[in-house]
Amino acid sequence: MNCQGNALKTDLYELTMAAGYFQNNMADIKAVFELSCHTMPPNRSYLVSCGLEQIVEYILNLKFSEEDINFIKSIPAFKAVDPSFFEYLKSFKFTGDLWAMPEGEIFFAGEPVIQVVAPLIEAQILETYLLSVLNVETLVATKAARVVQAACLDGKERSVIDFGSRRAHGPQAGILAARAAYIGGCLGTSNVYAGKHFGIPLYGTVAHSWIEAFDSEHAAFKAYFDVFPQNSILLIDTYDTLKAAQEISRLKFKKDIKGVRIDSGNLKILSKKVRQLLNKEGLHQVKIIASGNLNEYKIAELVKAKAPIDIFGVGTDMVTSRDYPALDLTYKLVEIEDGKGNIQFKAKRSQGKKTIPARKQIFRKFTKKCKIERDSLGLFSEAPDDTIPLLKPVLEAGKLAQGLPALEEIRKSFKEKVLTLPEACLNTERSHYLKPVLTPRLRQLSNSQG
Amino acid sequence: MNCQGNALKTDLYELTMAAGYFQNNMADIKAVFELSCHTMPPNRSYLVSCGLEQIVEYILNLKFSEEDINFIKSIPAFKAVDPSFFEYLKSFKFTGDLWAMPEGEIFFAGEPVIQVVAPLIEAQILETYLLSVLNVETLVATKAARVVQAACLDGKERSVIDFGSRRAHGPQAGILAARAAYIGGCLGTSNVYAGKHFGIPLYGTVAHSWIEAFDSEHAAFKAYFDVFPQNSILLIDTYDTLKAAQEISRLKFKKDIKGVRIDSGNLKILSKKVRQLLNKEGLHQVKIIASGNLNEYKIAELVKAKAPIDIFGVGTDMVTSRDYPALDLTYKLVEIEDGKGNIQFKAKRSQGKKTIPARKQIFRKFTKKCKIERDSLGLFSEAPDDTIPLLKPVLEAGKLAQGLPALEEIRKSFKEKVLTLPEACLNTERSHYLKPVLTPRLRQLSNSQG
Repeated sequence: MNCQGNALKTDLYELTMAAGYFQNNMADIKAVFELSCHTMPPNRSYLVSCGLEQIVEYILNLKFSEEDINFIKSIPAFKAVDPSFFEYLKSFKFTGDLWAMPEGEIFFAGEPVIQVVAPLIEAQILETYLLSVLNVETLVATKAARVVQAACLDGKERSVIDFGSRRAHGPQAGILAARAAYIGGCLGTSNVYAGKHFGIPLYGTVAHSWIEAFDSEHAAFKAYFDVFPQNSILLIDTYDTLKAAQEISRLKFKKDIKGVRIDSGNLKILSKKVRQLLNKEGLHQVKIIASGNLNEYKIAELVKAKAPIDIFGVGTDMVTSRDYPALDLTYKLVEIEDGKGNIQFKAKRSQGKKTIPARKQIFRKFTKKCKIERDSLGLFSEAPDDTIPLLKPVLEAGKLAQGLPALEEIRKSFKEKVLTLPEACLNTERSHYLKPVLTPRLRQLSNSQG
Repeated sequence: MNCQGNALKTDLYELTMAAGYFQNNMADIKAVFELSCHTMPPNRSYLVSCGLEQIVEYILNLKFSEEDINFIKSIPAFKAVDPSFFEYLKSFKFTGDLWAMPEGEIFFAGEPVIQVVAPLIEAQILETYLLSVLNVETLVATKAARVVQAACLDGKERSVIDFGSRRAHGPQAGILAARAAYIGGCLGTSNVYAGKHFGIPLYGTVAHSWIEAFDSEHAAFKAYFDVFPQNSILLIDTYDTLKAAQEISRLKFKKDIKGVRIDSGNLKILSKKVRQLLNKEGLHQVKIIASGNLNEYKIAELVKAKAPIDIFGVGTDMVTSRDYPALDLTYKLVEIEDGKGNIQFKAKRSQGKKTIPARKQIFRKFTKKCKIERDSLGLFSEAPDDTIPLLKPVLEAGKLAQGLPALEEIRKSFKEKVLTLPEACLNTERSHYLKPVLTPRLRQLSNSQG
């Protein structure tokens, strides 16, 4: 993505706090912040970690340009701020550590996904950007995983393609959603920029306007095939889906048609009738693509009803996570050093918003059959037997600890991780949430903090 | 916003159709597309047009770079496309007309907000970007208007500030939401980039992490005041809101404090008790700011309960339009010229997705008391008596018809437009939707199209 001007893509209070820490000689105090989600969204049994690559890109490129600094100076609230703070911003860069779950990891509410260990001022400045990126990508990857799961409910492989860019919250959200949907298991996207930037396979043929621009569907189908013989998916619902399906048998190139798309009407009935019509003509090779306000629930219904649909195009519901468009992610201070280098544990005690102090690690335990048995939330220094820690080092002293995985690798990794979910977590209609348990040591520490 | 690489921020099918029109010698046929919303969201009685400035910026700067074109060439579907199409893309620019409702205009489902009159290929290519920008900005401006309305439910002026960037769908969505929220009536935003780019007033002080980073709330309050004496809003809910409010009376600078913020707990009870404590100390000047998962319904409850809150900070619900995060906006072909220069009217007849053909205009009629009486949807060439047309020329032959209004002007205009809404439309808890009626001529034409 574009990194220009990113330093100002933040909440003002990150900058007022930065100036405040700086002037109070607290900028360099070592602090630990954790980013986590408090509540499981309805019907979700798991979340899919997504967005880390964009976060790392942001952190590695984060700097304040002269223009940025001049603007901050001009904000009325900054009138009394000491000029040395603006000098500091000129050379700002992130020098701390970042620990995180790898993208495509499965996690649950209450578990830190990202952990920043850095000078207080640096850790604070990251907050807003990290939250907004992780929010949208994790939401969409999670939703996409559910949609793909529904499409394959009967054990048969069916594909889902992201068609949502037009309904995303602006062009950038569409691109981030395309990436997240791919990680969540989609076959590809309609978003061309995402295809170029991330290498995601691209799909798309024509809209209804194409069909309408011609005098007849026959003419529209032929004109399209002439230009795109290798990509011959015909849109058949502009006027009368069944008539259009019959029209196909009159096309000279009918044996070369790859698919038909139905975007409206009763998809269960229409897909069955269209399949019959196609099969009667021996056009068994023609796949049926369905689209139009689909989501995991509607797709599950179609699969259960044995609608002969091969590919689902999913848009709005997936890219906006329509039924739950915002995770309650927070970025909380959990540890800070005092002046003497001792660690102080920190927690909020606000009503309904209590947090658990201390730098943590998530320890995942598997059954003998390689299913997730339980996650424990413990102190970072713990290492319970037979568990695997989920937070891994990503940045060390401001530099990449190791190369980030390729997108294909992340997608494959998530596909494998899904297999570790207990059966009950795979029901998309009911939440079965494996709430992490605190280790005795973390519980004791948390209780002692009031 | 950043315009680089915008040409690829689109659905693949816009480009396959473009190539198809080009190779079928249809690229230059004059076409009319209309962008409109089909369904009123629940409880909404009106929508606030927002996003036109970003759309115009996109169109005026739209071009395909060599890198963009090389990428399109490399997409497998484009294998058989004639090289002359890629030559055409090199010199692509929008040469058509754009008509639109001004930003900040009030509109209803069924009314075209944007109308593109252009060579078919040019009009088609704009679709995805236009939809995604208008979707998010219109959603958020509409939601913000409702939130502001609730805050002033009893006729008393109260301010709303956008705090939502962290929960927006990525950094760009946060910036667009800040703009839309400002147009919808917010006092300002926490988003620094939006402050710089759009000149929106900025607000923000500290997070809970600031309070926790100090040994006591007293120390945290004092350290903040030392740096920001002009911006002294103290966050008082980190541990115990009432204790923190009492702490304020012990601050030497208590007479200079501008406000306190409460971000959790029972805001109705806490705001009343905090107000009492402050008043007892003679601190009548200290404003109470409330935040934390607020929306129009919760704010209305607080106002009805006479909670002494002066300013509301609103985030997630507003910037994601949480209860309805996607409008069903579509971009439909309504007219096209045939080979002989005659106009053909176009409409979709898909089940549940029927559209009304012909280039249209919206004619608004007002009562004698300057309230909206009725909108009529008519042919573009009509001019019913005593009505005002809502679609205005924005681009003519690819160039600005006139300068776009400044943001402050748009905000002011919306504030005035709200006053034209009938009383029944101002109830945020029930939809009273003034459905536009078709003029006899448009109804006749629409019926004749089947």
